Amino acid sequence: MEAKKRSKKLFNILDENLDAVIIKNYNLPYIDKNFFYFTGLEEGIFEGCVEVLFPDKNDDLIVSELEEESARKSYANLKIYRDKESYNDILKDSLSHVKNIGLNFNGVIYKDFLNLKEMFPNVNFIDVSDGFSRARLVKDEIEIINIRKACEIADMVMGEIPNFLYEGIYEFELAAEIDYLMQKNGADNSAFNTISSFGKNSAEPHYAHGNVKLKKGDFVLCDFGARYKNYNSDITRTFVYGNASEKQRAMHRVVLEAQKIGFNQIKPGVKAFNVHNAVKKFIDDTEFKDRFIHSLGHSIGLSVHDIGAGFSVDCKVELEENMVFTVEPGVYISGLGGVRIEDDILIKKDGIEILSKASRELIEIQ
Amino acid sequence: MEAKKRSKKLFNILDENLDAVIIKNYNLPYIDKNFFYFTGLEEGIFEGCVEVLFPDKNDDLIVSELEEESARKSYANLKIYRDKESYNDILKDSLSHVKNIGLNFNGVIYKDFLNLKEMFPNVNFIDVSDGFSRARLVKDEIEIINIRKACEIADMVMGEIPNFLYEGIYEFELAAEIDYLMQKNGADNSAFNTISSFGKNSAEPHYAHGNVKLKKGDFVLCDFGARYKNYNSDITRTFVYGNASEKQRAMHRVVLEAQKIGFNQIKPGVKAFNVHNAVKKFIDDTEFKDRFIHSLGHSIGLSVHDIGAGFSVDCKVELEENMVFTVEPGVYISGLGGVRIEDDILIKKDGIEILSKASRELIEIQ
Repeated sequence: MEAKKRSKKLFNILDENLDAVIIKNYNLPYIDKNFFYFTGLEEGIFEGCVEVLFPDKNDDLIVSELEEESARKSYANLKIYRDKESYNDILKDSLSHVKNIGLNFNGVIYKDFLNLKEMFPNVNFIDVSDGFSRARLVKDEIEIINIRKACEIADMVMGEIPNFLYEGIYEFELAAEIDYLMQKNGADNSAFNTISSFGKNSAEPHYAHGNVKLKKGDFVLCDFGARYKNYNSDITRTFVYGNASEKQRAMHRVVLEAQKIGFNQIKPGVKAFNVHNAVKKFIDDTEFKDRFIHSLGHSIGLSVHDIGAGFSVDCKVELEENMVFTVEPGVYISGLGGVRIEDDILIKKDGIEILSKASRELIEIQ
Repeated sequence: MEAKKRSKKLFNILDENLDAVIIKNYNLPYIDKNFFYFTGLEEGIFEGCVEVLFPDKNDDLIVSELEEESARKSYANLKIYRDKESYNDILKDSLSHVKNIGLNFNGVIYKDFLNLKEMFPNVNFIDVSDGFSRARLVKDEIEIINIRKACEIADMVMGEIPNFLYEGIYEFELAAEIDYLMQKNGADNSAFNTISSFGKNSAEPHYAHGNVKLKKGDFVLCDFGARYKNYNSDITRTFVYGNASEKQRAMHRVVLEAQKIGFNQIKPGVKAFNVHNAVKKFIDDTEFKDRFIHSLGHSIGLSVHDIGAGFSVDCKVELEENMVFTVEPGVYISGLGGVRIEDDILIKKDGIEILSKASRELIEIQ
């Protein structure tokens, strides 16, 4: 089973001599995605649950009785608690004779850390967040299957968007159509709050959608993804409703060319920041200097902005086969609008595979 | 402005002599809901952003340039950082001459806490999570307006569900219809992963939806909510598709009666656990003894399971006017199915107002 191998992969990565690694969920929204990575569970919430990984024996999965049914799908030894007392007993039993415990300092809530310190006063807690990042950066076979499916769903929906648009449709209505179509086609959910921004709103990269009506000449920027078995996709296209102006065409042309330059840079052995910098330099040499105001891309998987690396100005991680990233250049002009084009790519031995097919050319919707 | 008063409300609740309270977001999903409570912001993500509350002067809101536009809607002094260095400078400047800082130990990631300790080695960090809970339990006027609207949307959609059902519809298709209708009617999003479970799946309280087709005689359990301006609703109805069996009718009758008993217990001055216990006792005196396997309800607001109190076996909080809770008794029979009925209620001077109107009687859908 793939998930079981992930525990081994982690211990191979970690230098420290650890007796166990624990992943501890708190209440929503403080649920550690690593819990799903190491258990391999594809649905459920798992508030308060704990996965205990061991270097030399089968792992323990400690869950409340509300999660018992869902947890049965994991490979780990299932231990069910009924209340706080039985939770304490089970965790103490699972971690008896343990001196050095790895913990995700990037995922554990401070109060929960204090609880653990109190329960295990003689244990050393060692930060293994970096090991988690390194393990999750390179995707395994099941992960790639799930990401492919998430991409396929979002890609199909993106291809349908021109058919949804009419003069006067509200941004929030288009967002509703996008989410609906993804769910009807197999998405468990949307990967994040769907962005469908019209006109000048497209110049704000973090604006989602509101009560704004579509009118002729508007940019229509759609940025969304599907969640499938806890894995995510993330795709963006920018259309023009009606005829594009020369300025709009120029923006789109530069962003599309920038994305191609990004694609061409990506292969095993290249350092992530070099990809970002090549694209940034290209855009800054055009009339849209300083209009590319975010990073070129991020790792994607269990999180939309997955941990470990991104195409950003300071990320020195060396690219490897089976990493999955977004490539999303954009240019933004306040008061006019923005263009962003984004696809998810899988790194192969000597280049990339683009995981979406929706046309990247400028579509002027009549 | 309502949000500004929340900072004052907090300092009135806190006993400690604090120079400032800070709310520090991390990366998604580790975003503290208190950030939205105290800033009053109704949309945006705000990764890495900080709100600094002062007992004696206007508060500071420190955000990245990506969030600048959204952050302008807050009452606080806006301070924009461009990179890590300017973030550090701004935060240090905002907290100069400060000795005692309140912090939400229930919302800050351990690594982020260590960062703060390193930046401010001579500061005492004091846990104010309890004060946050107490402040948020009693809703103010704007909060109640937003919760009412969230309830209204979900309530309207619940009333439409009988029209959506046909033999062979998949659980995930019904979930898609529910989410779509909420968004088309003004929800910013679904409050949580919509539950639409058929037949025996309804016996698992945490099961959401899957590839299961509706057939005659099935329970149809729908549990969902709308998110509106960051506030949530949470409503459940259980239908029968076709004619209900005697057993199904009996389950529904007991749960409906249990909910009424809960409603009648709730008023200012009552301790929360007494409401749960009265309902639990009622159900345990019927043929469905031990089939009510969760708490009767939870506070609701910025979080679906809001902080501070719930109708659970050990919650001694005394109810007050303007608290908002769900009341959701259920009985579950493995292999057969479950019935749950849930509404959100607002506590008034001498009782409650139920915030949804959808019929609570058993509907057998022909």
